[in-house]
Amino acid sequence: MRASRFLIATLKQNPSDAVAVSHQLMLRSGMVRQLASGLYTWLPMGLRVFRKVEAIVREEMDRAGAQEVLMPVVQPSELWQESGRWEQYGPELLRITDRHDNRFCLGPTHEEVITDLIRNELRSYKQLPANFYQIQTKFRDEVRPRFGIMRAREFTMKDAYSFHLQQSCLQDTYDRMHSAYCKVFNRIGLDFRPVLADTGSIGGSSSHEFHVLADSGEDDIAFSTASDYAANVELAEAVAPTDERPSPTQEMTKVATPGQNTIDEVSKSLEVSPKQVLKTLIVLGEEDEAGNQGLVALVLRGDHELNELKAEKLVGVASPLTFAPDAKIQETLNCSPGSIGPVGLKIPVLVDRSAAVVADFACGANKDGYHLTGVNWERDLPLADTADLRNVVVGDPSPCGKGTLEIKRGIEVGHIFQLGTKYSEAMRATVLDENGKEQVMTMGCYGIGVSRVVAAAIEQNFDDNGIIWPEAIAPFQIALIPINMHKSEAVRAKCEELYEQLTAAGYDVLFMDEEKARLGVMLADTELMGIPHRVVVGDRGLEAGTVEYKGRRDADKQEVVLTELLTTLQSNVKAL
Amino acid sequence: MRASRFLIATLKQNPSDAVAVSHQLMLRSGMVRQLASGLYTWLPMGLRVFRKVEAIVREEMDRAGAQEVLMPVVQPSELWQESGRWEQYGPELLRITDRHDNRFCLGPTHEEVITDLIRNELRSYKQLPANFYQIQTKFRDEVRPRFGIMRAREFTMKDAYSFHLQQSCLQDTYDRMHSAYCKVFNRIGLDFRPVLADTGSIGGSSSHEFHVLADSGEDDIAFSTASDYAANVELAEAVAPTDERPSPTQEMTKVATPGQNTIDEVSKSLEVSPKQVLKTLIVLGEEDEAGNQGLVALVLRGDHELNELKAEKLVGVASPLTFAPDAKIQETLNCSPGSIGPVGLKIPVLVDRSAAVVADFACGANKDGYHLTGVNWERDLPLADTADLRNVVVGDPSPCGKGTLEIKRGIEVGHIFQLGTKYSEAMRATVLDENGKEQVMTMGCYGIGVSRVVAAAIEQNFDDNGIIWPEAIAPFQIALIPINMHKSEAVRAKCEELYEQLTAAGYDVLFMDEEKARLGVMLADTELMGIPHRVVVGDRGLEAGTVEYKGRRDADKQEVVLTELLTTLQSNVKAL
Repeated sequence: MRASRFLIATLKQNPSDAVAVSHQLMLRSGMVRQLASGLYTWLPMGLRVFRKVEAIVREEMDRAGAQEVLMPVVQPSELWQESGRWEQYGPELLRITDRHDNRFCLGPTHEEVITDLIRNELRSYKQLPANFYQIQTKFRDEVRPRFGIMRAREFTMKDAYSFHLQQSCLQDTYDRMHSAYCKVFNRIGLDFRPVLADTGSIGGSSSHEFHVLADSGEDDIAFSTASDYAANVELAEAVAPTDERPSPTQEMTKVATPGQNTIDEVSKSLEVSPKQVLKTLIVLGEEDEAGNQGLVALVLRGDHELNELKAEKLVGVASPLTFAPDAKIQETLNCSPGSIGPVGLKIPVLVDRSAAVVADFACGANKDGYHLTGVNWERDLPLADTADLRNVVVGDPSPCGKGTLEIKRGIEVGHIFQLGTKYSEAMRATVLDENGKEQVMTMGCYGIGVSRVVAAAIEQNFDDNGIIWPEAIAPFQIALIPINMHKSEAVRAKCEELYEQLTAAGYDVLFMDEEKARLGVMLADTELMGIPHRVVVGDRGLEAGTVEYKGRRDADKQEVVLTELLTTLQSNVKAL
Repeated sequence: MRASRFLIATLKQNPSDAVAVSHQLMLRSGMVRQLASGLYTWLPMGLRVFRKVEAIVREEMDRAGAQEVLMPVVQPSELWQESGRWEQYGPELLRITDRHDNRFCLGPTHEEVITDLIRNELRSYKQLPANFYQIQTKFRDEVRPRFGIMRAREFTMKDAYSFHLQQSCLQDTYDRMHSAYCKVFNRIGLDFRPVLADTGSIGGSSSHEFHVLADSGEDDIAFSTASDYAANVELAEAVAPTDERPSPTQEMTKVATPGQNTIDEVSKSLEVSPKQVLKTLIVLGEEDEAGNQGLVALVLRGDHELNELKAEKLVGVASPLTFAPDAKIQETLNCSPGSIGPVGLKIPVLVDRSAAVVADFACGANKDGYHLTGVNWERDLPLADTADLRNVVVGDPSPCGKGTLEIKRGIEVGHIFQLGTKYSEAMRATVLDENGKEQVMTMGCYGIGVSRVVAAAIEQNFDDNGIIWPEAIAPFQIALIPINMHKSEAVRAKCEELYEQLTAAGYDVLFMDEEKARLGVMLADTELMGIPHRVVVGDRGLEAGTVEYKGRRDADKQEVVLTELLTTLQSNVKAL
């Protein structure tokens, strides 16, 4: 492509309203422009990247045996009423009314439409498994669209839906899609993790999110240093310590700690590590038959964080997890929350497994202004029920049994999910089984945020000068830059020749052929645009029979003899 | 593709609500399904065709130098208010309200969005011409969606917009797009005509519609038998006859024609051809300064039809064309409309050029119940002003000077238009010219109905058995059909081998590999689906070393020696 025939819309300044790096760089490199809040136009530069991502996704879906369809953006309310989501879905569902006063919505997702299609088209178990995907525009009326393409209102998703009679069949397709997703993100060239995700009531390993690791991610991902185990921090098990609890060495002592209520304050004042201070959190218990809710104490190490998802699943604890109001604590326990401890506590106590192996610990004395030190389980108080109550931390043993946990931030770009019969049951999507009996199908669903992948790739690959595209999705592979082309016929002729030659060799070349363009601007622009390789052609080099080559990640440029340029490129440009 | 892994959703019955052939066949062949009125899901079979059309359009747009962008479906009302269309556009514009009570619409077209983009991005005449296209979902809230994909509410368009300072620059891009459109429709394999279209006030050859010729078309297209001239019937000029008017041979005679008011009645009763009877139509004239409207008489041959578009453009005639009410005719001319004639008429008269060369004609006598025969211009009455007042008819000389006119029906699948400054003026889309002065850009716009092309291709290519796809957009090129594969290991093995071999040779093959599928059903299905070539493999043929080949348009099948199958296919399957 010749730059003179291509819209290069780079900006020198950072747009003031862009916070996320990818948002800034997509605007600055001329990939997108905002039309209205959460609505973006893809300019030619951005769309080239978008289409490359789309093509990789399509190829891998086809290879995985999914069949491409295309469903409407506009969906009739009747189907959403059947599934119950017309009422349940919040204001993110943009509901609209046509000229005949019929109600529709802009599809944020297509479970209803595909389930309606499939219940009409499939008749027999022989047609299963069936797996359909589309790459298509979605709309979610986000209350506060932000981070540019990352959380836009109109965006492009690849969404797939599979249909089965047996769980084993669903699992098989699920595994196949898991593997296809890995291929997609590997081919794009991203550092990512398939992450065990919350499945609500379904349980098992029936949902994975695919996260691109990047400091700007919104989610904390825990993963093993030695295996491919990865999970949202909230879901990673803090495995039970294998060490025995040390024997007591101290006497239990009551110490005045006036005005000291936080772990930090207590730990400093008592001169013990926060690991040796146990904190006691008071939450509401489950309702009894009369509708009364008692209190439950949760005991953790001072340096650990309560994991609410884990806690609320425990027997006896109210769900959703609710911290007891101060007044109720005061009234029941006769003490303010900052001075509570497990010794002599007259309510049910649950102890985190890591807290259960601490000896000689400090804790609240159940009397305002006092703490206990040198406390030991099974000597000063009985060891209550233990459970996994906390978030994992870096260095915890991995639940998979191999290595320890690292924690990084991740951007969710894909999600696969065993839906079960939520939609097929509500909408009566059945086929005849081998015995000629109608059976409700079970479903899987599989999404990739195609436009979001573009932004996530930038969040993971940039420097002070701009984007550093993974080769597979770079808008162009090579930037061809002439020095003073308008003054040098030799430079012009050599560039035209190289452009022909490199294009013929199958490279995607951006020839910066604009008359009188300044070298500094061209170098800055092509770095900002993240083009992985650049070749600079000038008179001085040509006299010596050389041009200059630099990879986008290289620290230094190198002189390359013209006759060796193709070889140099062959060994540097990643084959796609 | 193996049929066992592909959704073949053919229907035996014609869906009762489908009128158009393409609608029936798209449903029956399992290409699309209706989700709601005017909303369709593309099934895998249909989407394969859709994507092939899309790819051809994209390639030719790229070749023509247009740059691809992608604009949002959802557009803010503010831009439409700037252009004035928020109020002007009827209820086809689906207006919606987001959660913050901001107003948007679903884009039926993108002039406003692209003009907004370009006024922000382009600064200088040096960046012109610029031409941007997208392939994208549009929405028009048709009052009565019909003919399936042909007039759906949600559909896919390729729309392009170009920007210029000089008319010559616009004309150049326009010509380039005209030529690209011809390439698109030629590559798809359609019989089409670029047709001069009405340009309203702009005039000139600044708008062409691209029509696929098909009996079911909604428009009448007149085109030359000897050149590429084509125009909407309404716009084709009826050229002035070159023949001189014959000399009079009859005396003017007044004849009683009681109760005979139509050309048909008069022509039969007087025993003269309708060509010899002139009809006189009375319309309103232009308002004078006092606001009064007189009457004007339009005189045409009895076998010709008035062209209202032409008439209303004439000096002295009211626009839009309005027929005078009977009462006003009676009051002014003292005669009922069926007996009016030009002889002695006291109002302005305009004579169609073909009517002006008729001698010895019959016409109304301006007295109820009487006609005149043997009337001659310039003997019995002065020849009034002549003009082109009529629709062309088959056999008329072509206005291009070559050949005569044919008239066929056409389906509009593309439209190119020199927009001028309608949007750029209203939205202040300017660039600096060579003198550093701000100039409003002039625009062109260029549309192709991508989804509609699919339907139009069917309307032009079908028979009693189903679709007959042009090769370039067929969902599959070759259907490979085994006879009793579940009973014959030889058939199975040979089919697997051929499937491998043909696929490796680059053909798009649909292998009808479903166990126990009946031959008759497979033959009917693959004909219905319009697959251009089929190869049938059976035990009997294999024993003789042959398979059966038939092209979709062939009357007869032929036995082909296995070793020659590839050669046969090479000479029959059109290279794409």
